[in-house]
Amino acid sequence: MAPVRSIRERVPPLLTDMYQFTMAYAYWRAGRHQEPAVFELFFRHNPFGGGFSLFAGLHDCQLFLRSFSFTDEDVEFLRSVLPPATDPAFFQFLRGLDCSGVTLRSVPEGTVVFARVPLMEVAGPLAVVQLLETSLLCLVNYASLVCSNAARFRLAAGPRRKLLEMGLRRAQGPDGGLTASRYTHIGGFDLTSNVQAGFLFGIPVAGTMAHSYVTSFTSLEEVWPQTLVAVSGDPDPVDFISLTKGWLSRVCELLGAEPAKIREGELAAFLSYAIAYPQNFLPVIDSYSVGCSGLLNFCAVALALCELGFRPVGVRLDSGDLCRQSVDVRHVFRLCSDHFSIPAFDSLIIVGTNNISEQSMAELNKKENEIDVVGVGTHLVTCTRQPSLGCVYKLVEVRGRPRMKISEDPEKSTVPGRKAVYRLVDTEGHPFLDLVSLALEPRPEAGVPLTCFPLGCDNSAVSITPAQVTCLCQEMFTKGQVTHPLCSAAETRAKVQGSLQTLHPRHKRLQEPESYTVALSEKLHNLVREIRRGSSNDSNFLLAN
Amino acid sequence: MAPVRSIRERVPPLLTDMYQFTMAYAYWRAGRHQEPAVFELFFRHNPFGGGFSLFAGLHDCQLFLRSFSFTDEDVEFLRSVLPPATDPAFFQFLRGLDCSGVTLRSVPEGTVVFARVPLMEVAGPLAVVQLLETSLLCLVNYASLVCSNAARFRLAAGPRRKLLEMGLRRAQGPDGGLTASRYTHIGGFDLTSNVQAGFLFGIPVAGTMAHSYVTSFTSLEEVWPQTLVAVSGDPDPVDFISLTKGWLSRVCELLGAEPAKIREGELAAFLSYAIAYPQNFLPVIDSYSVGCSGLLNFCAVALALCELGFRPVGVRLDSGDLCRQSVDVRHVFRLCSDHFSIPAFDSLIIVGTNNISEQSMAELNKKENEIDVVGVGTHLVTCTRQPSLGCVYKLVEVRGRPRMKISEDPEKSTVPGRKAVYRLVDTEGHPFLDLVSLALEPRPEAGVPLTCFPLGCDNSAVSITPAQVTCLCQEMFTKGQVTHPLCSAAETRAKVQGSLQTLHPRHKRLQEPESYTVALSEKLHNLVREIRRGSSNDSNFLLAN
Repeated sequence: MAPVRSIRERVPPLLTDMYQFTMAYAYWRAGRHQEPAVFELFFRHNPFGGGFSLFAGLHDCQLFLRSFSFTDEDVEFLRSVLPPATDPAFFQFLRGLDCSGVTLRSVPEGTVVFARVPLMEVAGPLAVVQLLETSLLCLVNYASLVCSNAARFRLAAGPRRKLLEMGLRRAQGPDGGLTASRYTHIGGFDLTSNVQAGFLFGIPVAGTMAHSYVTSFTSLEEVWPQTLVAVSGDPDPVDFISLTKGWLSRVCELLGAEPAKIREGELAAFLSYAIAYPQNFLPVIDSYSVGCSGLLNFCAVALALCELGFRPVGVRLDSGDLCRQSVDVRHVFRLCSDHFSIPAFDSLIIVGTNNISEQSMAELNKKENEIDVVGVGTHLVTCTRQPSLGCVYKLVEVRGRPRMKISEDPEKSTVPGRKAVYRLVDTEGHPFLDLVSLALEPRPEAGVPLTCFPLGCDNSAVSITPAQVTCLCQEMFTKGQVTHPLCSAAETRAKVQGSLQTLHPRHKRLQEPESYTVALSEKLHNLVREIRRGSSNDSNFLLAN
Repeated sequence: MAPVRSIRERVPPLLTDMYQFTMAYAYWRAGRHQEPAVFELFFRHNPFGGGFSLFAGLHDCQLFLRSFSFTDEDVEFLRSVLPPATDPAFFQFLRGLDCSGVTLRSVPEGTVVFARVPLMEVAGPLAVVQLLETSLLCLVNYASLVCSNAARFRLAAGPRRKLLEMGLRRAQGPDGGLTASRYTHIGGFDLTSNVQAGFLFGIPVAGTMAHSYVTSFTSLEEVWPQTLVAVSGDPDPVDFISLTKGWLSRVCELLGAEPAKIREGELAAFLSYAIAYPQNFLPVIDSYSVGCSGLLNFCAVALALCELGFRPVGVRLDSGDLCRQSVDVRHVFRLCSDHFSIPAFDSLIIVGTNNISEQSMAELNKKENEIDVVGVGTHLVTCTRQPSLGCVYKLVEVRGRPRMKISEDPEKSTVPGRKAVYRLVDTEGHPFLDLVSLALEPRPEAGVPLTCFPLGCDNSAVSITPAQVTCLCQEMFTKGQVTHPLCSAAETRAKVQGSLQTLHPRHKRLQEPESYTVALSEKLHNLVREIRRGSSNDSNFLLAN
């Protein structure tokens, strides 16, 4: 599997926007390429109209920085697309470039985060940190988006139900599918249908059969072998078809069903599958009609398996009203359990998969239903409701001097300077405010009141006293080395659940959440004000000359 | 760049859903794995509420089939996730598997296609063609969707404007971004910002500068070198800053602008870029204020370039009302051209990039504007309006016998049997009907009337006479070999435009298009009826036994 691992472990440095190279050359030409510069990565709005997001993609960014370098072939290609007048020495410069001068500080992967908070700080030579922009955005944007989407599905589903990701066929190609599997697992999904994701990331994989398997059978003559050996006792093979037929008659009688409506091909498919996997029997039962055929065939085969000492697993429903059907199916399972005294029928699971959206998942939780496992594909991986996160990467400091983009649209203005981010926690252990301050300011102290300026609140100050303070960002990469251990998907998944656990329910509500406060320290607030004020006076160079 | 090429040229066979393997084992266990089977790939609704789609992804499917085989490592992983009772001989079988028994017939890449028409027919041993399902869907779904989306943007933009794809940072990770670049180019985009896509697929790349470049400068002192040598004539370097300052005064005078509002940092950025790329000057002019600063700075630098014999390229607008601003900007260009007698100012281009959607593109076409190049990112690559296509892969024949899924939802029923698809063309050269017939039926003849049954029309027959008939599907892969040449992105792009050209405008309308007719031949229609009728009688095996 080297090829797939490779694209994830070595995202090529050409996977960026052309203008990064034209800018890098202009910096180089002006002798500015080595100037120390700092960029920040953040997003402006929590996705899906929610109150939070999850930060993900760091792992891939660390690998990208570590492997960042241009091959001769890369450089030759750049020579062919940059203007002919480009100084050849620039290509020599590119050929020798790496991230040994870059330091990445970042929120840890899997942390709950909020709009406007700097998630990553990338410091290093101006030309290099500029070149990294698009690749880092590409690696963080979708990972964080789909991870947050998964967390919302997890919240909508409640903690009891198991969630299966099955979106590969709807993702943006092979790597889109792998990224989706990885980050939805991190966001709270339990299982994936994507075998390659299981292979690469250790995510538990699941899946049994599709409708095509059922429709590929037409008659019992296609079932082969036709026998099974009981788990214990008699070592002679049992005629499993006859055994099942007997059970089918009894099931039909118990339920008052019409044998004429039962599909022979479906029964053949179930028999054949059960003979292949007597301990893993979980067929899809809606290829024809659940009530008239699929459920009856399932019960007959499952009862025959039980008689031989096997333990059938359950059924999958893939169309129609999943809630109602699951209740009907569970009712039949209980009837069989009682009537035939087969307690294994009390622990059968019901899997539901039918174009599940966040909304239908939430409705599922409100209506009576008996669904144990929910499979989600399209709406999960494509993030239908908001298919992009909109992270941006903004310059905040050059040569130690703060930089700010002052836009006519105040929302598009940036916050200048190198920063620290502190998460302030209340006496009940819930985070209640993220404080963005200048990096050189002292750390806020627990129990000590401080004044700050919440963003989006018209410059009014508030005074607050945190019960605890944690520093949100850590050094993740410096001098060419990953300095914070790369986390496995399972570790990050645990971190996500922990981080979500402490968040107050009012911010986790899927509908109309209360917005979490992000505030600037007094010093940072003053710096913004000064730069804004200064900017209206600093441009009279034309008059002065 | 081997790694990225690899994931595209060798999609691993584990990149599929788990149930493909459990089904393959069940087939193998029942001795059915070598049975000849045929699957069809199609979608049920044209995307984006439109009247057509484009078929794309074939190229990647051909490469996938050619390289399909399991490594020892793959097989060991499968052994660890399949139930412990799985017969070890099955893993030997997998280890030796390839697509030498598979034949792919398909619509050519880049063809205009419609809902319900079989786009691909995959024939081969049952277990193998089952295993291919998810990978083929993954490769076709997003490619076709984003290609169709690009074609709609192309239609909305009109033929004159150049279109630039710049969605890498919003795509589903690195490979999502590459897939988007490739297939939006095929769908009609002219340029991409994605350098790796240029490298791999030969797509022209474009891009000049971001706001960060502008905000990284604060004063003219940062401009270095400060001189330029004229294109012809005097070989002595000219003080380019003084030259530009002179022009800036004249421009301010001409336009009655206030020099005090001009941003020195922005001028420094433009000067520095122009000195680096005197023949490729195209700055982003809205970092502060277009009218009060960016446009004036551009004109001054561009006029200075013209004086030295260079040819400035144009400007980029990235915020606000692009139409209005482009008109204002063009007006200023014309004033400069007239007043200073600089004809180069008549051919400056204006690039617009600001969260363009299909709708805003269409509006752009209705309002007065002067935008020559439009850059599109998020809405193009994420296909915001409908982020998945919904292709499905259905079994239509096993051992020469037609197979049909008869669903309670008639739309989810499939059309059985191995088929041929003919595109019928009217006397004006427009396709008007796609005829789906059984593969063994004679080909319809031009000028000869035929009876067929349009889908979705309550079984009523129509009689039609085609002026021309083309067979839509061709053999693309057989006996382990690609039998239809792999097309370059440029070739397929030309094919798309040709295919769209012949489509009648009524089907191409972006809003409320007239739906294109897809019909079954009389024989196929009858087969469907027979199977439906038969299906209600063939299930009395229980009674009979």
